[in-house]
Parts: sequence; C-alpha cells; structure tokens
Amino acid sequence: MHRHLLAAGAAIALTIPAYAFADDHVDALAAQADHALEHDMIAWDFTEGVTTEIGPRQAGTDDEARGRAWAIDWLNANGFANVADEPFQMQTWVRGEERAFVTGRFAQPMHITALGNTASTGPEGIEAEVVYFPFFADLLDAPEGSLEGKIAFISHDMRATQDGSGYGFAGPARWTGPSIAASKGAIATVIRSIGTENHRMPHTGGTTFAEGVVATPAGALTNPDADNLERMFERANGEPITMRLVLTPRWLGETTSGNVVGEVVGRDPSLPPVLLACHLDSWDLGTGAIDDGAGCGIIAAAARHVAEAGQPLRTIRVLFAGAEETGLWGSRAYSEAHIDEPMAVGIESDFGADRIWRFESNFRETNPELHARLARSVARFGVADSTIVARGGADLNIVRDQGGAIIDLQQDGTDYFELHHTPDDTLDKVDPEALRQNVAVWTQVVGILANEAGPISGAE
Amino acid sequence: MHRHLLAAGAAIALTIPAYAFADDHVDALAAQADHALEHDMIAWDFTEGVTTEIGPRQAGTDDEARGRAWAIDWLNANGFANVADEPFQMQTWVRGEERAFVTGRFAQPMHITALGNTASTGPEGIEAEVVYFPFFADLLDAPEGSLEGKIAFISHDMRATQDGSGYGFAGPARWTGPSIAASKGAIATVIRSIGTENHRMPHTGGTTFAEGVVATPAGALTNPDADNLERMFERANGEPITMRLVLTPRWLGETTSGNVVGEVVGRDPSLPPVLLACHLDSWDLGTGAIDDGAGCGIIAAAARHVAEAGQPLRTIRVLFAGAEETGLWGSRAYSEAHIDEPMAVGIESDFGADRIWRFESNFRETNPELHARLARSVARFGVADSTIVARGGADLNIVRDQGGAIIDLQQDGTDYFELHHTPDDTLDKVDPEALRQNVAVWTQVVGILANEAGPISGAE
Repeated sequence: MHRHLLAAGAAIALTIPAYAFADDHVDALAAQADHALEHDMIAWDFTEGVTTEIGPRQAGTDDEARGRAWAIDWLNANGFANVADEPFQMQTWVRGEERAFVTGRFAQPMHITALGNTASTGPEGIEAEVVYFPFFADLLDAPEGSLEGKIAFISHDMRATQDGSGYGFAGPARWTGPSIAASKGAIATVIRSIGTENHRMPHTGGTTFAEGVVATPAGALTNPDADNLERMFERANGEPITMRLVLTPRWLGETTSGNVVGEVVGRDPSLPPVLLACHLDSWDLGTGAIDDGAGCGIIAAAARHVAEAGQPLRTIRVLFAGAEETGLWGSRAYSEAHIDEPMAVGIESDFGADRIWRFESNFRETNPELHARLARSVARFGVADSTIVARGGADLNIVRDQGGAIIDLQQDGTDYFELHHTPDDTLDKVDPEALRQNVAVWTQVVGILANEAGPISGAE
Repeated sequence: MHRHLLAAGAAIALTIPAYAFADDHVDALAAQADHALEHDMIAWDFTEGVTTEIGPRQAGTDDEARGRAWAIDWLNANGFANVADEPFQMQTWVRGEERAFVTGRFAQPMHITALGNTASTGPEGIEAEVVYFPFFADLLDAPEGSLEGKIAFISHDMRATQDGSGYGFAGPARWTGPSIAASKGAIATVIRSIGTENHRMPHTGGTTFAEGVVATPAGALTNPDADNLERMFERANGEPITMRLVLTPRWLGETTSGNVVGEVVGRDPSLPPVLLACHLDSWDLGTGAIDDGAGCGIIAAAARHVAEAGQPLRTIRVLFAGAEETGLWGSRAYSEAHIDEPMAVGIESDFGADRIWRFESNFRETNPELHARLARSVARFGVADSTIVARGGADLNIVRDQGGAIIDLQQDGTDYFELHHTPDDTLDKVDPEALRQNVAVWTQVVGILANEAGPISGAE
C-alpha cells in the first residue's frame, strides 16, 4: 500500500499545474484514501444505522420523515456543518394488499408486488384471462383492442450485466408495459420482475401511464412465479389461463418529503461547491441498504475523510435526496430551489455497494489534465479510466440543468439486480470490504476536486 | 461409461451367490442406470408437472387432494399397476395472516411466517416486549415465569452441513422452543428461521407443544430480519424492544388426506415387496419441488427404469405419503394399515434433489455380501460406502415398526436448507443433472434389491 501511495504522489507531482494545492496535502489525501480502504467505519455505521433504526423509508411517508430526522442527527453527530432539511411537497402512492392466484386447472398462489403509481383492483380483486407476451416487443405487436378485458403478462427477462445495461434492456416492460397494455384494453398487467435473481421475491419499482391512458392495476411476479406461469401456458396447450389479482395500493394525496443537506465548509466558500448525492428514501419492501443507504454512507464517509486530510479549498455538500424512487421528486425540487447556485461538479452514489471499477467524467475533452489526474489517482484501487461520457444519476438534476461537470464512479452492477427493489435489500447483502473500496475511491476523487481551484469542466 | 459398466458387471459376477439373478439381467440393469444418468426424463416430468399443475399441497387441504388425484393419473399414465388412494383422517392446521412489526424507536416491519400447530394472535394481534435468547440453551436457562407477558426471540442460527446434521443442531429452537417459552410464561415466540440462506424468506415447519402447555402464537423471522433484530438489541443498550405480531392460523378440524401407492408387479408377488417412499404433501409457501416433489419423481422414475430392464423378481411399491409435514400422518396411517404385510426393504427420498454421495444400510453386519454388492454397484456414480447405520426417513414408519431392512441413499444437503420449507422451494432450484444422478443410483440399487431372492437383511 505504501509503495502505491508514493507512486501515485510522484505521478501527480510531475503533472499538476500552478494552481494545484500543496504536495503535502496531495499526499495526505492519498494516505487518507488508503486508510479508508482498510479502516473506514463511517459508511458502514450510516448504512447499519439507517437500516436497523429506521428500515424502509418510502417516499412521502412518515417512515421517510423518520429517516430524515435520523440522518440529520447523524450528520450533526459526524461533524457536518449547515445540516438542514429542505422540505417539498409530493404526491404519495403506497402499497396495500397484494395477492395473485392462478385460477382454474393449475390453481395456485403466486408471489406478486404492485408497481408504483398503479391503480387498485379493489379489495374484491379482479379475475380475467391472461395473455402471454414472452418479450416486450410482443406486447408492442399486439393489435389495438386485442387485450380488452384481459390481463397482460409480459415475461421479458433481465440479464445480469456489469454496467447495469440489462436494466435498460428489460426495464421498459415495467416502465411503460402497463400503460401500453392498458392502451390496448388490458384491465391489468403482470410482469416478470425486472431483476436477475431466482428467489421468490418480487421486484417493485415505478411505472408511468401515458397521458390519456387510465392507470390500471399492475404488479411484478417473482422470477420463479413467472417461470411457472410460462410452463402453465406450455402445458395448457392453448386452453385459457386465468388469474385473480388483489392489489390495493392507494394515493395519499399531497404529503411532505424533503432533501437533507450537510457540508464540509471549504477554505474559500465563495467557490462553487462539490456536490455529492445519494437518496435517502427507499422502496418499502426492503430496508434500503444497497438502494441507497450505502450510497449515502459512502458519500458522507468520503466527505469526512477529505476533511480529515485538511480543510478543503471548496465546500463539499452532501445531498441526501428525498423521494427518488417514486419520481425523482427530491432531485427536481433541489434543482428548482438551487438552480442559481452554481455547482463545481456533481457525483452520485446510487448503484449499490459493490466495488467501483470504472471512472467516467463529462470533461475528458475540455479538461483532459484533470480527467487524467483523477483517473490515475484511483488506478491503485482497481478503477479503470474510460472514454464514456458521464451523465450522472437520478439525484443530479441540478448539475445537468446547469450543464455542469459530472463524474460517474461506476460500481459493479453484476449482482445489483439480485437485490434492487426487493425485500432482500438488507444490510447483510453489503460487503464491508467492497464498501470501503468505494469510500477510498470517493475520498481520493472528492479530495482532488474539493482542492481544485480552477473550473472542473475546464470551461470558464 | 461403457468401461465402468463392464467393470461393475465383472465385479458382481465374481461375488454373487447362487440365488442371484441372471448375469444378463445384471448387465441390463446397470445399463439402464447408466442410461438414466444421461437421459432420464421421468423424474423431471413428475417434478415439473406437480409443481406447475398443482403447486403447494398442504397436508389435509383441497390442494393436497388435487395433488393426489394428479399423482394417481400420472402413475397410471406411466404404467404403474395397482394405483390407489388410501385415505385417512387427520387434524388440519392452516396459515392465516402473518405480519410482524418492531414498534417503538426502531419501528419497522419484519418478514415472518407462522409455525405449524401454533395458535392465533387474533386478527387484532398482540404487542409485547421481546426477550432475546442468542441460543436455544439460553432459553433453557431462563427462570420459570421470567417470560410472563413477553415474546421470546430465539436467534439460534443454523449452519450448512453436507449430511444435514445442522438441522439437528438448530432444529430444537423450532421443534420445542415455543413450548418451552410458553411454559415459562411467554405469550408468543419468534425464532430465527431454521435455514441457512440470507434471503428474506422465512422457513416454516411444525412445532410441538408439550402435554399441559397451552399452544401460543409462534413464527419464524427470516435470517436478515433476525440479524436486524439482533442489531436493534445491540443499539438499544438495554432499552426494551417491543414487537407487534399478527398471526392468525387456525385448525380446520378433521379432514381427509391419503397415501397414494402404485406398483411394478414382480415375477413372484408372494415375496415381500421393495418399498420406495417419498411424500406428496408440501408446505404451502413453496411449490414443493425439492420437498418432496423431486423425491417422488426419483422413486417413480427408478421403479420404471428397473421395469424397463426386465420384470423384477419382487414387486416394487411406491408410496407417496400424505401429510408428512404436519406430523407424519400418512406414514403412521400406512404402517397401521399394512403392518401385517412384510416389506423386504424400505428406501426413502426426502432430502431434496442434489446428488447422492453416500450409501448406508442397516444390514451391513447381517448381510455383508449384499451391502458390499450394493455399495460397489453405485461407486461409479460417485457414491461412497459408509458404516453409518441407515435409519430411514419420515415415511418409512412401517419398515421401522417391522424392524425391517432399510437403505439410505444420502443426498448432499449443503444447500438444502436454503430452500426447505420456504417460498423458494420451486422447480428452478432443481438441477436436472443432479436429479438424473439420483435416478441412476436409485435404479441401480432398486434393481438389485427387487431381483434379490433371499432376505435383504440377511435374517431369515
């Protein structure tokens, strides 16, 4: 470790321009990152605390509010300045009963969960014939009106990918499948969970009904249940398969959510701050450990480690966004409230707690020296440089709206969709060693950024 | 494969005594076992069929009755003779609502399932302080009356073992924990699931209240929930933790279950039959794939393969026992009904669908030649001989009651308790290749036994 540290310091010393911060501060930051790799307890403490003491923190609910109060206490206790709750109003959807049964010849229960923003079947439920679409494209091909009075079943299966792109391949079945099915007459939709595991746990998540399409009930079956339903179609030889659904989610109307912020104040508060983002809300099924308790733990830990290495030049602001899961309410509210306050750069952690494997920025062309310096600084943690242009995640609306600098510290997503949006998103799924690697990489990157005097994107 | 086959045939030819069946039949059986290893579809067809077309088959319910009717059709369609349903009466317990919530400072829901034979909290539920027992022994040490008005939490954790012995280590927390806690005043008990996986799925199973102890509500938390509850005790620093439980199981009274039997009739039906056993009922949470759909598939497939190799000397009887899970009702009923009908030998498959790794009999001392011949015959499938005395499983009461010969073809149980008694006991967890290895081993062993003229145990 010491060898790597010296090598990294030496490489930086050869290339940093005149405005760079002092060499000993560079070394101290690198040492602090190396220390975090072995010894960080801050990220774990946050993740364990919020999942144990609060648990699920669904957007717009009292549970999320308890989470905010807890996070504010935690930030204060951990030395953050200017800790605040920035409330906003939102429309809040909550789950009710959720049961599904195949009826008729193959009668048996199935495990289901409602998708966010969907309608209720009423407590008495609905029963109808199921129409099977092996892939999302098959639903697109279904003639208008062909689903009148039916339940659409979209079985499009997701594949695990390191970069998370499998979500883009399978996600539309959830994001727009119910709306498309409804527009063709379906009275409800069941999808195969947008997730890669084979446990009996359904993956929830939001769906959106297009303008003019009346919302219907819609839910996700677990992968084993979707497999079973497929086999039933095979064994039925064309005989109809029917299903009864009881899904009773409801809208609570307008409730209060909020963004929680805290700062490590820089030596020159007039400079635009470095914005580190995550989201504090979680889906209600799990305890929000990997989505996104760990992300908030990582960014907060990095901010503290950077401060440990000496007060940074710029202020580091952490944003624990509220209400991400049900429509990026917090990210949008934050951008609206702070759009006139320029951010130096935005980075988000919201893809679990597995190791960071790739560095991306959106200023590789405009500030190649800084991009290269950052990429080199994290190579010792096994992070590769990349030509992919960083786009930031859900909680960085403000930086995108400002056209600002963005960095993506890409986490390995191979196993993420085993857990994402399921009851299984619990603390035991977080690997403490991988979590510390995240903190180390973040400490190194944030440390450089927060001590960078010039504009991060290179543009004046 | 061919080389192994010849070698096995040669070895047997040197050692078989005068009453052994013809060499070409020996070869045909070995060839059939080898064929099953690569090509058996019968066990898969049964397992897929019963899990897809019937699903859960809880003891004493209509679902179990549908399963029996389905199995009878399947046995008839697969060439079994004397297929019959042998009904018996039983007391039937069924699950109701099941919810658990930590209340107070760490308020959050927990995933729970009721244990078989437990009482209801009533729909309004109960709320009480939780008393934490890290291990079963800690509960034993609790003073009489010390749990008055409390909920006992037994967190004894199970470890995975190849031979399933971890169940014996952890099982008492479920089998007798609730009764012991009740006897010390507890109004309810929650246990850590008796299972080894870390998914958010509770493991159900039966519990027994001792004579004179009034049954209380009792349920199993998932392992991640039990972990979380432990962490709460750590974070609470002695402050009480309270929990609300809503568990509404009920007794249906006396209902009908039944044992399903079928036969491959032997050349000499006057000889005691070879009894192959499994159970057809399953817990309601999963679809009963590994417990015990696969077991019934394996024994039925083996019987068919033996018949394929030429009519056996003895009749082979398959027993798909009813109502095993809630108290061995079927096994006991079968023994009562048939106790006067001697069985040549009993073998059961009820430990999942993973590979067989060990051969055990209870006649190694009394009939060493047959024991050795059987053990050698399955060595080519990776099955080791053993000096452990076979005891048979839950469905072999009749053979134990008769003091008869028993063989255990031990399956690898390392992963069994990831699935056993959980919603995750579904077809996708069955590895077709491992399933075929089971069928091959069974075909070989049953083939030898069903063609053995002398008494299996060696005793006259």
